[in-house]
Amino acid sequence: MRELPLSKVYQLLEPGPVVLLATARNGRPNVMTMSWHMMIEFEPPQLACVVSNANYSFAALRATGECVIAVPARKLAAKVVKVGNSSGRDLDKFATFGLGQLPAARVKPPLIADCFANLECKVTDRRFVNKYNLFILEVLKAWIDPAQKNPKTIHHRGYGTFVVDGPTIKLKSRMR
Amino acid sequence: MRELPLSKVYQLLEPGPVVLLATARNGRPNVMTMSWHMMIEFEPPQLACVVSNANYSFAALRATGECVIAVPARKLAAKVVKVGNSSGRDLDKFATFGLGQLPAARVKPPLIADCFANLECKVTDRRFVNKYNLFILEVLKAWIDPAQKNPKTIHHRGYGTFVVDGPTIKLKSRMR
Repeated sequence: MRELPLSKVYQLLEPGPVVLLATARNGRPNVMTMSWHMMIEFEPPQLACVVSNANYSFAALRATGECVIAVPARKLAAKVVKVGNSSGRDLDKFATFGLGQLPAARVKPPLIADCFANLECKVTDRRFVNKYNLFILEVLKAWIDPAQKNPKTIHHRGYGTFVVDGPTIKLKSRMR
Repeated sequence: MRELPLSKVYQLLEPGPVVLLATARNGRPNVMTMSWHMMIEFEPPQLACVVSNANYSFAALRATGECVIAVPARKLAAKVVKVGNSSGRDLDKFATFGLGQLPAARVKPPLIADCFANLECKVTDRRFVNKYNLFILEVLKAWIDPAQKNPKTIHHRGYGTFVVDGPTIKLKSRMR
């Protein structure tokens, strides 16, 4: 993994890819699938995400205030769905689905080796957790896998339907 | 436009498309381009979005508490960028860029006729506006244009680069 400048993090999450969210509690890592996230600030990069309190990851995220958000490419789609269909209450998802772990630099949850990008995050605002299950995160460190060239991300449309990235177009925009 | 059941709204926004946000203040409609949004509840559909206080739309959204979020397809990409590159302070973007308006049922801002989906929204929580420019919205009514078949949405990757929807894949998921 190569470090990615924090100023570029928004370009990973702004297009709305399905992501994995890794937590660690009492030395035990867990991972869930998530689509409800958005950027809220460019740099330092901040984002908001919703983690349902029905998810096993919710308590770990709230208690530890740390997570890794990892972006999987198309080739991981089947594993991503299996991660989403199961709960860390019942099994070790890393072992069960053969997801590789790498140590993170600033947080306890692991980087997910199979993903082309990994973002080490800390929770910076919990005021909307009780009402909306909404966490505000800051990205402390970002990693990209240079071996994965032009990864295609996937976008959830509900009930197992995903749209894979298609062609890239370039338009004259002054928008960052 | 045909009415869309509110239970299906999340399927439009969850994949992270670039959207247009229409406001109306003192009888004058305006429109901006936005990518920082996410679902936070299925039904009634609620979402969060960030509208920078540097945008002319910010004051209108805060003051009126109403907007329309419209989802453009690929063919509107050039107009979407022009909307994003200009400000309602200086011009009437609907007239300048030839965007058609249709009356909304529950809010004052117009539906955008050229978009394949339109969501009539009201602001339901302003507590994160001052700190993050983050609005919580509820979708009151949703419309879909049945004439636009299988529209391809666009996803912003920064500086005028957009990824267009590619192939759809179907996987066995229990995730809603």
